[in-house]
Amino acid sequence: VGEFDAIERIRQNLPGPPSGEVWSGDDAAVVGDGLLLAIDAVVEAVHFAAGAPLGDVGWRAVVANVSDIAAMGGRPRHILASVVGPPGTDLMALAEGMREAASTYGCPLVGGDLAGGATLVVTVAITGAVDGPPVLRSGARPGDHLYVTGPLGASAASGWTRRPLARVDEGEAARRAGASAMIDVSDGLISDLNHIARASAVGYVLDNVPVADGATEEQARHGGEDYELVIAAPPEAAIDGIRIGVCTADPSQREEARGWEHDFT
Amino acid sequence: VGEFDAIERIRQNLPGPPSGEVWSGDDAAVVGDGLLLAIDAVVEAVHFAAGAPLGDVGWRAVVANVSDIAAMGGRPRHILASVVGPPGTDLMALAEGMREAASTYGCPLVGGDLAGGATLVVTVAITGAVDGPPVLRSGARPGDHLYVTGPLGASAASGWTRRPLARVDEGEAARRAGASAMIDVSDGLISDLNHIARASAVGYVLDNVPVADGATEEQARHGGEDYELVIAAPPEAAIDGIRIGVCTADPSQREEARGWEHDFT
Repeated sequence: VGEFDAIERIRQNLPGPPSGEVWSGDDAAVVGDGLLLAIDAVVEAVHFAAGAPLGDVGWRAVVANVSDIAAMGGRPRHILASVVGPPGTDLMALAEGMREAASTYGCPLVGGDLAGGATLVVTVAITGAVDGPPVLRSGARPGDHLYVTGPLGASAASGWTRRPLARVDEGEAARRAGASAMIDVSDGLISDLNHIARASAVGYVLDNVPVADGATEEQARHGGEDYELVIAAPPEAAIDGIRIGVCTADPSQREEARGWEHDFT
Repeated sequence: VGEFDAIERIRQNLPGPPSGEVWSGDDAAVVGDGLLLAIDAVVEAVHFAAGAPLGDVGWRAVVANVSDIAAMGGRPRHILASVVGPPGTDLMALAEGMREAASTYGCPLVGGDLAGGATLVVTVAITGAVDGPPVLRSGARPGDHLYVTGPLGASAASGWTRRPLARVDEGEAARRAGASAMIDVSDGLISDLNHIARASAVGYVLDNVPVADGATEEQARHGGEDYELVIAAPPEAAIDGIRIGVCTADPSQREEARGWEHDFT
């Protein structure tokens, strides 16, 4: 099975949330009174090559999580980090990259865990806060416009963006402006937009996908790890982004994803 | 460097917490108004053998985190899980073990992440709540009595306790009864007691270490992963545990740890 099928099968066996909470199925969980929770790992030889600068790896592990909070329209609060790696791992470089990202996004590293292991796995968990209803994947409606916060494909074109940025301010502004649905581009625009389309039971038509300098149209549509936000909003909402298309009432109007999916066959 | 030195070096480069919060250096972080946060990973070929029943691995990954909350005198609230593993990993068995532990301790799995990787790494992050001041490692005073919540060494004696239990009720009761310091036995009694002794600047004398059935005195003192709690409390506090010794004013009165420490040399 693929990653998304496996997640769905696991979800079906778990208890569901009380009213007002969101447990899995979105960028972050929503529990209690506006507390957001997410977790994300970066893995050597999967998300980054052996020998990649560990400061960049630490940065990315934090930013991938901050981006999940941004995609809810929230702000990051605190992070925890678990590092599994072999002897000789430059923990100080890794920690420094995490510290820089944590400082940039105002979410201090408050705890962690170190353990030995054959390959380096850096797992970050994050808490966030949202001072109003978070923006879910499920709120898009036919006729809503679709936006992205910037051109796409840069990470796929370069193979590795050293210090990608999460769009916290943009996500919060979109929520306040009335965004109906939001997700970050971690697996690829089409793959991630399809998560919104499925959760919202809508289709979409794209007429203007902005392509990053040096990237191809294909990379912009299917490349992952750009951490731009995809935003759906009613036409009257003043969203500060690049309009890429529109949501439709026909769920068959979707493009086929060619984004990254981990294999658990 | 060893795990504990590496953690200390990383801590020295991180910003410190505002008054009333605890960021690293205890079983869980304390942020905001009684919110507890912790993270812990279990790693194939390090914490469990390849081929171990994955339901037991999932259970243990959750219980190790619940135990960290228990050691603050708190109650677990929500968990997040990140699973990194190769194709063929029985995710459903792993998830079922996590679900059973989450159900037992009332802390639902609210989100997660799956990724490919060469060896299985299961990382769980946890939130907890405490309705009063949490019990830190640093509060023990000379003259405080020391207690454990049960006999020790069972995990070391058997090599693997299939479904260890976290001592949530016992930790909460100890906090309410006036415990001055607390930690769970994850690395070994002496190793973990030394964390209390260092943080509290005390020594200790042990006169009665309870040995689990089938375990040796050595295993009770130095074996890890029992998840019993070690509690320090003033003599007048009514602690429901086995009295093992007393805290002293002489920091040189400590035993040498032979517990497990990961190597990052």
